[in-house]
Amino acid sequence: MRRQNLALVLQEVAAGAPLSRAEVAAASGLTRAAVSSLVEELIGAGLLAELGPAPSGRVGRPGTALTLNPQGPAGLGAEIGVEHLAACVVDLRGEARVWTRIAADNRGRPAAEVLADLAALLRTVAAEAAPALRPAGLGIAVPGLVGAEPGLVRRAANLGWSDVPVIALLRSELRLAGAPDLAALPAEVDNEANLGGLAELWLGDHAGTGDFVHISAEAGIGAALIVAGRLFRGARGFAGELGHVPVEPDGPPCACGSRGCLEQYAGERAVLRAAGPGSARADTGHSSGEAGSGRDWIALLADRAADGDPAVLAALDRAGTALGTAVAGAVNLIDPASVILGGGYAELGEWLLPGMRRELTARVTVRPWSDDWLAVSVLGRRGPLLGAAAGVVRAIVEDPGRFAAQ
Amino acid sequence: MRRQNLALVLQEVAAGAPLSRAEVAAASGLTRAAVSSLVEELIGAGLLAELGPAPSGRVGRPGTALTLNPQGPAGLGAEIGVEHLAACVVDLRGEARVWTRIAADNRGRPAAEVLADLAALLRTVAAEAAPALRPAGLGIAVPGLVGAEPGLVRRAANLGWSDVPVIALLRSELRLAGAPDLAALPAEVDNEANLGGLAELWLGDHAGTGDFVHISAEAGIGAALIVAGRLFRGARGFAGELGHVPVEPDGPPCACGSRGCLEQYAGERAVLRAAGPGSARADTGHSSGEAGSGRDWIALLADRAADGDPAVLAALDRAGTALGTAVAGAVNLIDPASVILGGGYAELGEWLLPGMRRELTARVTVRPWSDDWLAVSVLGRRGPLLGAAAGVVRAIVEDPGRFAAQ
Repeated sequence: MRRQNLALVLQEVAAGAPLSRAEVAAASGLTRAAVSSLVEELIGAGLLAELGPAPSGRVGRPGTALTLNPQGPAGLGAEIGVEHLAACVVDLRGEARVWTRIAADNRGRPAAEVLADLAALLRTVAAEAAPALRPAGLGIAVPGLVGAEPGLVRRAANLGWSDVPVIALLRSELRLAGAPDLAALPAEVDNEANLGGLAELWLGDHAGTGDFVHISAEAGIGAALIVAGRLFRGARGFAGELGHVPVEPDGPPCACGSRGCLEQYAGERAVLRAAGPGSARADTGHSSGEAGSGRDWIALLADRAADGDPAVLAALDRAGTALGTAVAGAVNLIDPASVILGGGYAELGEWLLPGMRRELTARVTVRPWSDDWLAVSVLGRRGPLLGAAAGVVRAIVEDPGRFAAQ
Repeated sequence: MRRQNLALVLQEVAAGAPLSRAEVAAASGLTRAAVSSLVEELIGAGLLAELGPAPSGRVGRPGTALTLNPQGPAGLGAEIGVEHLAACVVDLRGEARVWTRIAADNRGRPAAEVLADLAALLRTVAAEAAPALRPAGLGIAVPGLVGAEPGLVRRAANLGWSDVPVIALLRSELRLAGAPDLAALPAEVDNEANLGGLAELWLGDHAGTGDFVHISAEAGIGAALIVAGRLFRGARGFAGELGHVPVEPDGPPCACGSRGCLEQYAGERAVLRAAGPGSARADTGHSSGEAGSGRDWIALLADRAADGDPAVLAALDRAGTALGTAVAGAVNLIDPASVILGGGYAELGEWLLPGMRRELTARVTVRPWSDDWLAVSVLGRRGPLLGAAAGVVRAIVEDPGRFAAQ
C-alpha cells in the first residue's frame, strides 16, 4: 500500500509540478500527514526536490514547491544507427540534459567494434552528466528485430547483424573502457521504431492519448503500434514491420526477397533513387567511408524540396502516396485513433502528408476517417534515443518503491 | 471471494467434465468442504448437474460426476445474413442444441421486416429448446459495422442499413410476436466477423491459443483480431476491415469508393465474376427473389472446383493470392501467432490455401513464418451464429455469481 502511495505521490508531482504538499494531498486524496511522510521518503531517495516557497493564492504560510529532482537518478540512452551512434542522459522528467551524436559507418562492421565506440560515447555523456545526474539504467535503440530473448538482436539487416547479444557485448566493452559502473546498470535493448513510438507516447504531443500508429524511417521503415497506452508487440515480438507491407504486388524487388514492399517506395534508397542527381549518394551503396553532412538524406531532401526541385517533389509525393496506401490498410485493419508521422519523416511531413491524406481519404471509407487524425511528431529523429533513455526514468516514476529499495 | 471461487469451480468442471468433487478440489486447490458447498450453490442455480457415480481408480466410494448442466441456462443466438436468417440455442457447454436457418433476400428490405422474421425464428427455436433449455441472453450477428454505442448497427452496406437500433427494434418485434420473455433478455449485437473469431477462440480447434487472425467471408470479407485471448476492437470499434485493405492501388473500383480492395479479388461477387458462366448469379445483382440452393455461392464454387472447372480454379487461385498478399501485410504489421481461414472460406480452403501460402512465404521474410501457422477453421460458416449464442454462456461461466444473483 505504501509502495502504491509512493507511486501516486510521485506521479502527481510528475504531472503537475511544481506542486505544494497540500496540492499533492488534494490531487491524490491522501491526507496531508501521509503525503508529508511519503514526500520525505521520495526526497530521501533522490526522486523529489524542493524548489523553495511556492506562490499560493491562499492565506497563510506558503507551501514549499515540489518537483521531480532535476539532479536525481537519470536515464542513460544509446542509439546504434546504420550511419551514426548517439547517446544521451535524461533527467527524471524525461528531459535530455546531455546529448551527443557522431557519424559512423556501421554497415558490416563487427558488432564488437561498433559497441566499443558506443561504450566510449556512453562513458563521455555519463561523465558530462555527473555528478548531478546518476544513470539508474541503460536503454539501447537498434535498427533491427529484437525478439523475446532479453538483450538479443535477432537481425539487423542494414548492419549485417544476426543474433547479436548486444547487452552482453556492450557490458564487456564498457568494462574495457573503464566504466564498470555503467557496465553494471540494468539494461534493455529495443527496436528503434518501437522506442520512437514510446517516446511519442511519453513525451510527444500525443502523450497519453494511448492509441496510435507511429511511423518512422531510419535504416528501414518501422511502425510502433500503441494500444491502450502500451506498445503492442505481437505474438512473437515482431509487430510493426510496416516497411514490408506490400504496396504493389508486382512492384520493384525488395532486399527482403519480396516485391513491391513499402520500402521500395518510401524507404531511403528508393526515395533518393527517384529524386535523381543531386542525391548521388543513392547510387554509392553507402560504401564511402565519408561521414559528412552530405550523408543526411533527410536534410538533403528537405532542402531540395524547399527549393522546389521537381524530381524531389515527385519522389516525395510518390513516397507519401505509398505510405498512404500502406497506412490505409493498417487503419482498416487495426483502427488506431490517430497516425503519427515520426522519425526522419517528420522533417519531410510538408511533402509527404498531401499524398498520405489523399490515399487515406480515398481508401478508408467504410468507417470514419478524418484528416485531423494524421499528424506529425514534434520529436522527429530524436524519438528513438529519447525513448531508450526515458524508458529508464518511466520505470522509476511508475514504481519508485522498487527503485528506493535497490 | 466466494464469487471468485464459484467461477473457479465452474471453470474447472467446464474444462475437465466429468469430474468428481474430489477432482475439482485437487484441480482448484480448494478444500473438499469448500468445493461441496460451492457445488451445491451451482447446482441450485442450474449451472452444474450430477451424472451419477463417476468411475474412479481409487479405493473407496466412487464420487458423483459433475458436468455443466445440459438442461440449464442457455444462449440464444441470431444471425442476420444478406441472404439468410438463422437462429440457434446453445447449452452451457456452447454446444448447439437447436439450429435453424432460412433463406431470405434481405437486401434493401426495411429493417423492421427483417427483424419481424427473425423474431418469429427466435420464438420457434426457443420453443423447441424449452423446457430443457432456458435462454439467459441473446446474441445477434450482423453483416455490418457495430460501433461503441450499444445495440446500434452503424452501417451494413449489403443490407442497405445505416444507424439501425437493432436491439430495440428486435425487442419490439419479439413482443409483437408474443415472446415477451425473449424481448426481456439481455442482448448484444456484434459484427459477424468478430463473432466468428470469438467462436474460434472459444469452441474451435484454436480454442485458447489466444493470438490469431480469423478471416471470414459472408457478405463482405472480415477479420477478427484475437490478441491475448480477447477480441481486439481498435480505438473506435472498427478493427478488422480486411476486405478494404488495398491489394493493388490501381486495381478494380470497389463499392466503397476506393480501388483494388481485397474484396475486388476475394469477395463473393469478384470470385463469381471471375469464375464465369455457371455462376450466373454473379451478374443478376442478387435481385431475384428466389432463395434456393443455387444461391449458395460457396457450395457452388466448391462443387465446380472439385469437378476441376478451370475457370473456377483460376478464380479461386486469384482470390487466394490476393488474400495472401493482404494477410502478409497484416502479419508483418501485427504479428499474430497464426492465421485461421474461417467462415465460407473454410469450405474453399483446399483451393485458397496454395495461393495464400505462396504469398505469405514470399512476403513475410524479415521475421519468422511457417506454413503451419495458416490453418482452416473447423467451425466454418457456423462460426458467427455459434459465437453470438456462445457469448451468452461464456459470460455465465466466467462469472456464475452474477448470474446466480439475478
